[in-house]
Amino acid sequence: MYIFERKINYYETDKMGVVHHSNYIRYFEEARCAWLEDIGLPVDLLEKNGITTPVLGFSTEYKHHVTFGDTIVIKLFIKEYTSVRMTVGYEVTNKETGELVNIAESKHCFTTKELKPISLKRAKPEFDEKIRKIL
Amino acid sequence: MYIFERKINYYETDKMGVVHHSNYIRYFEEARCAWLEDIGLPVDLLEKNGITTPVLGFSTEYKHHVTFGDTIVIKLFIKEYTSVRMTVGYEVTNKETGELVNIAESKHCFTTKELKPISLKRAKPEFDEKIRKIL
Amino acid sequence: MYIFERKINYYETDKMGVVHHSNYIRYFEEARCAWLEDIGLPVDLLEKNGITTPVLGFSTEYKHHVTFGDTIVIKLFIKEYTSVRMTVGYEVTNKETGELVNIAESKHCFTTKELKPISLKRAKPEFDEKIRKIL
Amino acid sequence: MYIFERKINYYETDKMGVVHHSNYIRYFEEARCAWLEDIGLPVDLLEKNGITTPVLGFSTEYKHHVTFGDTIVIKLFIKEYTSVRMTVGYEVTNKETGELVNIAESKHCFTTKELKPISLKRAKPEFDEKIRKIL
Repeated sequence: MYIFERKINYYETDKMGVVHHSNYIRYFEEARCAWLEDIGLPVDLLEKNGITTPVLGFSTEYKHHVTFGDTIVIKLFIKEYTSVRMTVGYEVTNKETGELVNIAESKHCFTTKELKPISLKRAKPEFDEKIRKIL
Repeated sequence: MYIFERKINYYETDKMGVVHHSNYIRYFEEARCAWLEDIGLPVDLLEKNGITTPVLGFSTEYKHHVTFGDTIVIKLFIKEYTSVRMTVGYEVTNKETGELVNIAESKHCFTTKELKPISLKRAKPEFDEKIRKIL
Repeated sequence: MYIFERKINYYETDKMGVVHHSNYIRYFEEARCAWLEDIGLPVDLLEKNGITTPVLGFSTEYKHHVTFGDTIVIKLFIKEYTSVRMTVGYEVTNKETGELVNIAESKHCFTTKELKPISLKRAKPEFDEKIRKIL
Repeated sequence: MYIFERKINYYETDKMGVVHHSNYIRYFEEARCAWLEDIGLPVDLLEKNGITTPVLGFSTEYKHHVTFGDTIVIKLFIKEYTSVRMTVGYEVTNKETGELVNIAESKHCFTTKELKPISLKRAKPEFDEKIRKIL
């Protein structure tokens, strides 16, 4: 599990007075990039090796709102990993109140720059190993 | 079914050269607002009557990329409607190629300004009627 | 002069209840792309010819707010054009009230894909001609 | 002078491969909010006291690009302060290379919630004092 903290920006709120729901999918990308850096697989290293990790699917359930002035805590965890596909789970809480803000998951695959699917194990066994180590 | 067309903006692309996946959830909001206006229930009319329609959940599967220069066609349809909850489905295609870009659904409820859930039928039967008419 | 109309999206508002000021710079890009298409120089044609038009500078003065439900009218005009540099002016009004929303200008140059400055007249005289025709 | 560091997010890049120019105006808001918090005037404290600080104007000159993987350093400084108006300056550099990314300034006033201009000195002398202290 990886913990990512993030303050809410003013420009991420909407006229309902809360974070616009579209921003969470961006926060999850931030958390994913920070996590990949943390395990020694920063996205730019992947890209230098010709590997991209497009999003295949995304789902989320919203539970409570947060707004400007709040900090969210994103717990990121790997739900499934097959060297070809990866499902990442997220649980977001309000840092101050502990309230559950939302849960989500994103599905990814590994591809070449031209977006042709690959097996990370075959393409870069040492990268595959870094993900398997934390499962 | 409601059809919504949308050109892709330059600022919606990312360094992969395609629309960043976070933007679709915004396109769906645009389509939903246009559809509500089309059936005589524009969001500002709802808001003037103290009714908001927060998003409870969202899920999507990405199939193909589009980029700046492309136009997407969003087919919007109501998958479920109970006066208390509503599920909206979306099918996005590339206007020129006809290729399926993604499918998605968003779940909503109706609430007061203070985000207390309400039944649209009880709160505003004539609004409820407008949605039921197109089911 | 070129006229570009644009509805305000819900996700472009902030908790002050109005369009977040950062969005106008995006609306101006939309207007610029639509104008370039209108004069027969769509951005993708420029890019296919290895030409990009980065923004060198931007300035704006905000006069009145608009919000979701409003439509803005952007008047776009070329303030200066030298084949090497171009200054584009913008005047934004609220379509319904006629109220001035803001004025702005953006400065651009023409470059190769590698962002090396070029003269449009020397690189593509027929493109240069299309801009000169509307001055 | 206040220093604000910020990593570039993937979703902030565009198909040119660099940060889309519209994002800097958002980074400046982040820096401004962090600075106000630092001097004991967090935006939510201002808002609880019925004070907002709308942006009246903004100008910027872009010098160099940054992209995902880069960190920017924003130096924020007060160029002018009259209790009624405030001009904030920004100088952005690439943390790793020291290269100047852009310079900018934003003009603000102080208003009531209803956006009526006020003098911070008259409305809240202790808030006015906190800004004067750092001039």
